[in-house]
Amino acid sequence: MAMFELHPQLLADTLLLGKFDLSWVLLHRDANYPWCILVPAREDVREIHHLDTEDQYALIRESSHLAEVMTDLFAPKKMNLAALGNRVPQLHLHHVARFENDAAWPNPIWGAVPALDYQAADLAHRVAKLRGALVGEGFQAAV
Amino acid sequence: MAMFELHPQLLADTLLLGKFDLSWVLLHRDANYPWCILVPAREDVREIHHLDTEDQYALIRESSHLAEVMTDLFAPKKMNLAALGNRVPQLHLHHVARFENDAAWPNPIWGAVPALDYQAADLAHRVAKLRGALVGEGFQAAV
Repeated sequence: MAMFELHPQLLADTLLLGKFDLSWVLLHRDANYPWCILVPAREDVREIHHLDTEDQYALIRESSHLAEVMTDLFAPKKMNLAALGNRVPQLHLHHVARFENDAAWPNPIWGAVPALDYQAADLAHRVAKLRGALVGEGFQAAV
Repeated sequence: MAMFELHPQLLADTLLLGKFDLSWVLLHRDANYPWCILVPAREDVREIHHLDTEDQYALIRESSHLAEVMTDLFAPKKMNLAALGNRVPQLHLHHVARFENDAAWPNPIWGAVPALDYQAADLAHRVAKLRGALVGEGFQAAV
């Protein structure tokens, strides 16, 4: 049986926070926004409606849990959720904490401004906070 | 008890196709893309994670049903789903059928190109097709 593997573009753009029962939880390396991505660990799935009903329910539970954790940690004005996948075909669900003073507000973030690198200490701090807060939905932190 | 009402911006930008058990189903008046919007008929809800679990399950069932119907009718390259709401605070979930020759591909549609009016006959045809195909999840066509 083939192991589930991340699409190379997601592997390049993100850092693995850990895994829920269904989905891998990634942090995008763009420091412009607190930006996490859920990837259901199912091979060859491109659309949410291709998941079976139980996986759809797990996905929305995990998504809402992640959105709540990000809201608690970052106190955004709005969460932006999106499953686009025009460039990266592996099903992935963006979760972006948005603020009225962020680089793209009130527009969607995709293509708005160039990605910004984290300072190493800021990235380590954000990863540690998220891994510590993401308790539930079977979350296992990556090590 | 107050009746559920659409946000004025959604009312202006869309046409009501009908109602699922939880969500109203709208067609956006921008002819650039087959573009439907689900609005859960719950007052003062801005985020998916503010819905209770049963409503979250209903939303993902209705969303997947709508995405399947749009895929059957329009045969897109990719469905784009998004809950943004930076400008319109009422929770709404975009469903956009995307094609490699559409006006914004492969970028997200928001802000990409100006909205395009439908020809009246094309709009009537699209509405009739969608209303006819959206059987299930308690769908009741608007009249």
